[in-house]
Amino acid sequence: MTLLVQKYGGTSVASIERIKAVAEKVAASRKAGNQLVVVLSAMSGVTNNLLAWANEVQADPNVRELDVLLSTGEQTTIALLAMALEELGCPARSYTGGQVKILTDAAHTKARIIDIEQEHIRRDLDNGEVVVVAGFQGVTEAGDITTLGRGGSDTTAVALAAALKADECQIYTDVDGVYTTDPRVVANARRLDSITFEEMLEMSSLGAKVLQIRSVEFASKYNVPLRVLSSFEEGPGTYIGSEDATMMELPLISGIAFTRDEAKLSILGVPDIPGMAHKVFGPISAAGIEVDVIVQNIGNDQTNDITFTVQRKDTAKASKILEGVAKEIKAEQVLVDDKVAKLSIVGVGMRSHAGIASRMFETLANESINIQLITTSEIKISIVIEEKYLELAVRALHDAFELEGPDSKS
Amino acid sequence: MTLLVQKYGGTSVASIERIKAVAEKVAASRKAGNQLVVVLSAMSGVTNNLLAWANEVQADPNVRELDVLLSTGEQTTIALLAMALEELGCPARSYTGGQVKILTDAAHTKARIIDIEQEHIRRDLDNGEVVVVAGFQGVTEAGDITTLGRGGSDTTAVALAAALKADECQIYTDVDGVYTTDPRVVANARRLDSITFEEMLEMSSLGAKVLQIRSVEFASKYNVPLRVLSSFEEGPGTYIGSEDATMMELPLISGIAFTRDEAKLSILGVPDIPGMAHKVFGPISAAGIEVDVIVQNIGNDQTNDITFTVQRKDTAKASKILEGVAKEIKAEQVLVDDKVAKLSIVGVGMRSHAGIASRMFETLANESINIQLITTSEIKISIVIEEKYLELAVRALHDAFELEGPDSKS
Repeated sequence: MTLLVQKYGGTSVASIERIKAVAEKVAASRKAGNQLVVVLSAMSGVTNNLLAWANEVQADPNVRELDVLLSTGEQTTIALLAMALEELGCPARSYTGGQVKILTDAAHTKARIIDIEQEHIRRDLDNGEVVVVAGFQGVTEAGDITTLGRGGSDTTAVALAAALKADECQIYTDVDGVYTTDPRVVANARRLDSITFEEMLEMSSLGAKVLQIRSVEFASKYNVPLRVLSSFEEGPGTYIGSEDATMMELPLISGIAFTRDEAKLSILGVPDIPGMAHKVFGPISAAGIEVDVIVQNIGNDQTNDITFTVQRKDTAKASKILEGVAKEIKAEQVLVDDKVAKLSIVGVGMRSHAGIASRMFETLANESINIQLITTSEIKISIVIEEKYLELAVRALHDAFELEGPDSKS
Repeated sequence: MTLLVQKYGGTSVASIERIKAVAEKVAASRKAGNQLVVVLSAMSGVTNNLLAWANEVQADPNVRELDVLLSTGEQTTIALLAMALEELGCPARSYTGGQVKILTDAAHTKARIIDIEQEHIRRDLDNGEVVVVAGFQGVTEAGDITTLGRGGSDTTAVALAAALKADECQIYTDVDGVYTTDPRVVANARRLDSITFEEMLEMSSLGAKVLQIRSVEFASKYNVPLRVLSSFEEGPGTYIGSEDATMMELPLISGIAFTRDEAKLSILGVPDIPGMAHKVFGPISAAGIEVDVIVQNIGNDQTNDITFTVQRKDTAKASKILEGVAKEIKAEQVLVDDKVAKLSIVGVGMRSHAGIASRMFETLANESINIQLITTSEIKISIVIEEKYLELAVRALHDAFELEGPDSKS
């Protein structure tokens, strides 16, 4: 018998109507002979409403109490889905994180799962029941309610699938799979049938926000096959697995990810002596500014140039810090450009194929797009370009690497 | 140090504003040197909304899942109050029924409390923290969430007070105490400073709906002193305790309770042989009709007359059943009157004073009000009269027994 863990997100359970629709899907899957554990998020909007209440009551809400509050969201949906399933003649039983129990550390609002008890779930599955579990929440050894942080329901689903050695962990969401790039930018972007964990990690961290990166890491670590599907349409979705499991001729590249709203900062003429990088990034990090790309290149004589990107909203703060650092270490100049975007092509195939980078650069050159920064990893090439060229660059590369599908809409 | 259990009902926590106001009250009481356990209901309206959702999903909602759903209401308010208290510099810690834990039987939606663990509460109180507990809910030995049924938050408060041997259990509500009768009927009705458990039981079961009868029974059984207070105004409220504890010259009668919407049914000429009462009330009870007053009087010769009252909405059903019974047992006649009301005077003082009944009957005779039925208990005399005379009767008796206060508004 096939054991599936299915996770439905906030938009999938946003109303009584939709909860009933989820129940239909779940009941059909059980009727097809599957054993099912269903993980739910709160109705979309509910968590934000509760957060707003908390902020109204306490300027900096106590995190233990915040978790007690937020966990009510999923507790509501699991009870309603269990009822809806019963109404369809499909026996079901709901569990909060504490009831399962999903044991976590005590890091309230961003707890990590330590262990999952399987006793209740196994018993109910053996009895032919659908087990409905509240996502996003757990309980400490001391009995305090915890939450896993935003996107935590994906993590709950993957962790359950890993613990139960499920055949597949299906993430139902409001898109029907992972695409070669954002369909809003490239009309003939294609849904991928499959993608490797590594590729998905590069894609999701780069802004293709289908799955929470943490849940993909988790799935990769425990080799839990994932599938992203739409709650609202039929379709096979996108399978995400290990390189072996995807079992197919790997394409050169799988997709193009990008982020706007980046700012680029450079510090030029940094003395070429040890400790300089730390002097630059120490204060930036201490100010809570997240740095994305870092490139260091050789400058003239005994100096180096260091360039990095931050989120655009942090530009002023980062710039001010950098000016101070420049004075201190006697660097020559600080340059700031907050009109840049980052674009990455991702694919495990590029590991074994030469010429990907040059094809990428050639494509951009043909469009007269200047490349400002380049960084690479084993399965990814990222560039920073002037923001206004972003869409043009994405479309040109999508064509150049032949990512469009046979069912292209363009 | 004085240990108080305070319970705030749904209207007292109906908004963020009001939760903050409750926090002010609690923080002030702690500052005055009290140890505090606070029991909360859900925001008013929330439980009904959740119930409506459940009914939308499942015609006859699964009771286990219903309890999972409903218990989110109090879980929300306890977290918010704990935050509001912290914001006032008053350390606090919330507990769901399951976290305390409040152990109940498995009778979902109407569970009974079996035991309350005191470990967490005692520790927090010793640490100077306010303990905030979700009312209305508990947990079974197997870990399933239960609810205690409507009004269950009062029961939670009293049970906690009993377990912790609290000095007083204060029930905060939207009225400022227990009155001699309904102030909407008698303008100069007076707030009672104190009342005995027995009187309160007679008063509450007769329609003075300040406290849930079950929580009063519980308080009486474990001798937990109660106090009913207003969440919205300052004042001493009404103390409810044992006859000894109220420690005062007992008045002859404490109050006048009444219910409208009654219907009176009589079956005349019932053969005077054993088993007749059962033949009459067996089918009524089997039909789920609640019977209130029962009076049996001697009729002519070898027959009796039996009269009883039911809620007016059950008149037609009860009448039809009674006609059938009359035929079966060869009774003479069935009479139905659905325009009656019941009125009771209550007071432990009447036990030791003769003449209460006759003063009552005289007062009504002076107003030309005909008494249709009379029943008595040790501390109560109830009568059934024509409904249109109800207000007149209540006012006349309120005057006759001098229940109005010195601060009378009339």
